Amino acid sequence: MSAYDELMAFARETEALKMISMRLGWDQETMMPRGAAEQRGEEMAAIESILHARRSDPRVGDWLASAAPEDAVGQAQLREIRRDYDRATKVPADLAKALARLTSLAQGIWAEARANEDVAAFLPTLEEVVRLRREEAAALSAGGDAYDALVQDYEPGSSGGEIAAIFDAMRPRLVDLRAAILDKPVPAGLTGTFDPALQMAVSDALARAFGYDFTRGRIDTAVHPFSSGSGADVRITTRTNPLDPFNCFYSTIHEVGHGSYEQAIDPAFALTPLGQGVSMGVHESQSRIYENQLGRSRAFTGWMYDQVQSAFGDLGLDGPDAFYAAANRVQNGYIRTEADEVQYNLHIMLRFDLERAMVSGDLPVKDLEAAWNDRFAADFGYAVDKPSNGMLQDVHWSVGLFGYFPTYALGNVYAGCLHEALRAAVPDLDAQLAAGDTSGATGWLKENLQRHGGLYTPRDVIARASGAAPSEGPLLNYLESKFGALYGL
Amino acid sequence: MSAYDELMAFARETEALKMISMRLGWDQETMMPRGAAEQRGEEMAAIESILHARRSDPRVGDWLASAAPEDAVGQAQLREIRRDYDRATKVPADLAKALARLTSLAQGIWAEARANEDVAAFLPTLEEVVRLRREEAAALSAGGDAYDALVQDYEPGSSGGEIAAIFDAMRPRLVDLRAAILDKPVPAGLTGTFDPALQMAVSDALARAFGYDFTRGRIDTAVHPFSSGSGADVRITTRTNPLDPFNCFYSTIHEVGHGSYEQAIDPAFALTPLGQGVSMGVHESQSRIYENQLGRSRAFTGWMYDQVQSAFGDLGLDGPDAFYAAANRVQNGYIRTEADEVQYNLHIMLRFDLERAMVSGDLPVKDLEAAWNDRFAADFGYAVDKPSNGMLQDVHWSVGLFGYFPTYALGNVYAGCLHEALRAAVPDLDAQLAAGDTSGATGWLKENLQRHGGLYTPRDVIARASGAAPSEGPLLNYLESKFGALYGL
Repeated sequence: MSAYDELMAFARETEALKMISMRLGWDQETMMPRGAAEQRGEEMAAIESILHARRSDPRVGDWLASAAPEDAVGQAQLREIRRDYDRATKVPADLAKALARLTSLAQGIWAEARANEDVAAFLPTLEEVVRLRREEAAALSAGGDAYDALVQDYEPGSSGGEIAAIFDAMRPRLVDLRAAILDKPVPAGLTGTFDPALQMAVSDALARAFGYDFTRGRIDTAVHPFSSGSGADVRITTRTNPLDPFNCFYSTIHEVGHGSYEQAIDPAFALTPLGQGVSMGVHESQSRIYENQLGRSRAFTGWMYDQVQSAFGDLGLDGPDAFYAAANRVQNGYIRTEADEVQYNLHIMLRFDLERAMVSGDLPVKDLEAAWNDRFAADFGYAVDKPSNGMLQDVHWSVGLFGYFPTYALGNVYAGCLHEALRAAVPDLDAQLAAGDTSGATGWLKENLQRHGGLYTPRDVIARASGAAPSEGPLLNYLESKFGALYGL
Repeated sequence: MSAYDELMAFARETEALKMISMRLGWDQETMMPRGAAEQRGEEMAAIESILHARRSDPRVGDWLASAAPEDAVGQAQLREIRRDYDRATKVPADLAKALARLTSLAQGIWAEARANEDVAAFLPTLEEVVRLRREEAAALSAGGDAYDALVQDYEPGSSGGEIAAIFDAMRPRLVDLRAAILDKPVPAGLTGTFDPALQMAVSDALARAFGYDFTRGRIDTAVHPFSSGSGADVRITTRTNPLDPFNCFYSTIHEVGHGSYEQAIDPAFALTPLGQGVSMGVHESQSRIYENQLGRSRAFTGWMYDQVQSAFGDLGLDGPDAFYAAANRVQNGYIRTEADEVQYNLHIMLRFDLERAMVSGDLPVKDLEAAWNDRFAADFGYAVDKPSNGMLQDVHWSVGLFGYFPTYALGNVYAGCLHEALRAAVPDLDAQLAAGDTSGATGWLKENLQRHGGLYTPRDVIARASGAAPSEGPLLNYLESKFGALYGL
C-alpha cells in the first residue's frame, strides 16, 4: 500500500469512530434513560481518548510527509487530515487537558450564574477560559492573529478581518430595516393550543416536502433541535410547544436543511474526511435557505397554510397572506435563538465584535457586560433588563467557543448569495413552492453545493455555486425587498 | 500507579468501549434507518478492531504478570481479564480472521438454505465452520477436550461431561412428562386480535411489576427481543403480534429478567469486567425464573388476568384458571423458540448431544440431518417434516456458536435450584405474587445472586444462592408438580 492508501485506511477508521461518537451524542439527547448520564460520560471519555490518540498519531505525520495523491480529491483529503493533525500536534497536551477540564466545569458555573442573574459569579471563569483560548490560539497561529486562528475550527480559510468587512457593511442597513419594521403594527400570530402529535405529523410532511430521505434518517424530539451524522445515517430532531407550532415546523425545516446537506454528499466520500459538510457557515447556509428563503417564502407558506389547516382546522387567520405574515413576524426581544430573520444577524454581529475584542485583549472580560449592554441599546433601541437576557444568555463562551458565533451570520450571507443564484437558475421557483414542490430548489442546491461535501473550501464552494465571492449584498437586498413588501415600507 | 491499577484503568476504558459497541447493536435493531446498514457495518468493524487490539495488547500480559490485587474482588477482576487475554492471544491471528470471515458469510448461506429447504447447500459451509472451530478449540485447550474449550466462552468453568450428566438425568423424566401431558386435551388459548399499543401498555405494567428500573432503562420493540447493556443503561426489547399477546407479555418478562440482573449489579463493579452477568447460563436463569417460575405461576397469572382484562375487555376465557392454563399450554411443535417450559429442554438436549459429537468428530457433518431427525422422533414421537423445522431452524451453528445451546437449559436447571430456595426463603410468595407484588422474589434474587455480577463463578454463585451445587432435581420436581396438577396427571 502507498503512504496515501495507508493514511486513508487509517482515516476511514477514524471517521467511523467519529460517527459512533456522534451517534452516542444523538442517543444522549433523544433515547438515553436519564439515570445513565454519569456512565455515558465515561463511555464518551473512552471513545474521545481513542480519537484524541488517533488525531496526533505520529504515523499520520509520516504518511502526510510522503503521501502523493493523484487527484484533486486526494489533495482535498490531505488538506482536511493535515489541518486536524496540525491542530492536534501544535497545542501542548497540558494546555489541551487544562482547557477540557476548565470548559467542562465552566458550563455548570455559567448555568448557575445565569439562573441567579449573577455576572460576577461567572467572570473569573470566563476570564480563565479567554486566557487559555488565547494561549491555544498563540500555539496554533505561531505569531499570527489569535482570533483568526480560532475561526479556523469552524470556518476554515476565513478570518476576523474578512468577516468584519462583511458584518460592518450589513449593520447600518439592518439597523435601519429593523427600525422601519418596528414602526409598523405587529401582524397577528397563531393563537390557541396545537396537539404535539399533530405538529409532528405536519413536521413529517414538511420534511418529506423538502426531500429529507427517511430511509437514511429519522426525526425525533429533543430539547434543542439538532442534526447528527453523515452519509447513510443522518438523524434530525425537532421539538413541540403546544402554543407555538411554528417553532416545531421551522425547527424541522431548518434541521432538514442540515440533514439534507449530509445526505446529499457524494457517497464516494462516505466515511472519509470529505464526507461531511465543509464548515459551520456553509452548513448554516443550507439550514437557513431551507428555513427562510424557501420555507418562509410567500409561495411555500401558501401551500403550508393548507397543510396546517387540514391538520388543525381553522387557524383563526385571515387567509394565506395572514399566515405568511404570522410566519414572518418581527418583534422586539432580547434572545438570539428566538430572533427573526431580520434581527438575528444583529445579535450575531454584537457577539462577534465583543468576542474578537476579548480575544485580541482590547476588551477586558470585566468590561464585557457594559460593552454588551451599550451595543444592544445602540442597535435595538432599548436596554437589556437582566443578564440572562444579555451577556449570560448563550452557553458558547463558557465552553470556549470563540470564533463560532460569526458562522451563524455567515450562513445567512451565504444563503443570500445562493438564493439569488437559485432564483436565476429556476425562474418558476415560486410556482413550484406554491405547489409544495421544493425539488427545483433542493435539486439545484444538491447539484451545485451539497454533493461536494468537503471537496472545496467554504469560500470556493459558495463562489462556485453562486457565481461570485460571498458578499452581504444579496442577503440585504432580499431582506429589504421581502420585509419592505410585507410591512409596506 | 501499581500494575493492578494500571490494568484496571485500561480495563475500564475497554469496558466502556464494549458498552458503546452494545449500544450500537441496540440501535441497529431498534432505531437505525434501514438504508444505514452498510455504513453501520463499517462503523462496527472500526470499534471491533479497536477492541480486538486491546484484548491482546501486550501491556495486558505484563500487567497480569505483576498485578497483585489485595482482595477477592481484585482477584476476580484478574480472573476475568486473564480469561479474555488468554483467549485472544492463544488463537493465531490468521485463524481468528478466517473464522470471522467465514461466519459472516455462513449466516447468509444458512438463511438461503433454510428458505430453500436445501440442506446440501449448507453442509459444505457447516463442515468448514466445524473444522475451524475445532482448530480454534485445539489452540485454546492445548490437548484438552475440544468441546470443553468452546463451552468456556459461554459458561466458564463448566464442561461437556458435567452438562451431559445433568442432561442425561433429565431426559427420561422430561420425555415421560411430555408424553403424559400430550395424552390430555390441549387447553383453550386466547382468540381474537389484540391492539399492539395496548399490548405495549400491559408490557410496561408487567415490567414495572417485576421491578424493571425505567430511569436506567427503556423498552422498545425489535424483531427478536433482547436485552443490552449493563449498570446504569440497560435496555430491553419486546415484540407484538396482534394474534398472540402472550408472546409480547412473556418476552417482556423474560427480558426484564435479563435486564434486572444487569441493573442490580453492585455499582462498584460498573464498567469493570465484573460489571456484567457472569455467564449465559446464569443470565438465562434470571430470565427464566422471572418468565416461568414467577410469571407463569398460578398466583401471578391471577393478577395478570385482571390487568389483561382491563386493557382488552372480556378475553372469552372461563376465569383466571383458564387464563393460567392458556399461559401454560403444551402443544406439539418443531420449533425450539416456540416451545413451552416442558419441551424446551428436550430441544436443547438434542442440539447439545449433536454438536458435542460434531466437535469431537464422532458425528460427521454429513450425517447431521439423519441424526437430528432420529433423535427428534425418539423424544417427540413424530417425524421432522422439512429441514427448516429440523436442523436448519437455528442460526447458531452457522455463526460458529458451538457450546452455546446448553446454556439455555442450564439456565432452566439453575432457575429450578433458585426457585426451590426462594420458596423456602419467602413462604408467602404466592400471596405476594397474587397481588402483583414480585418484590419478595426479585429482592431475594438481587440480594443472593444478581448484585454479585461476575464476582463468583457461575457454579459458585448458584450454589451460594440455592445452598447446593446445581442439579436437575429441583427443576424436574417443579415441572412434574406444576404440570401434573394443571393436566391432572
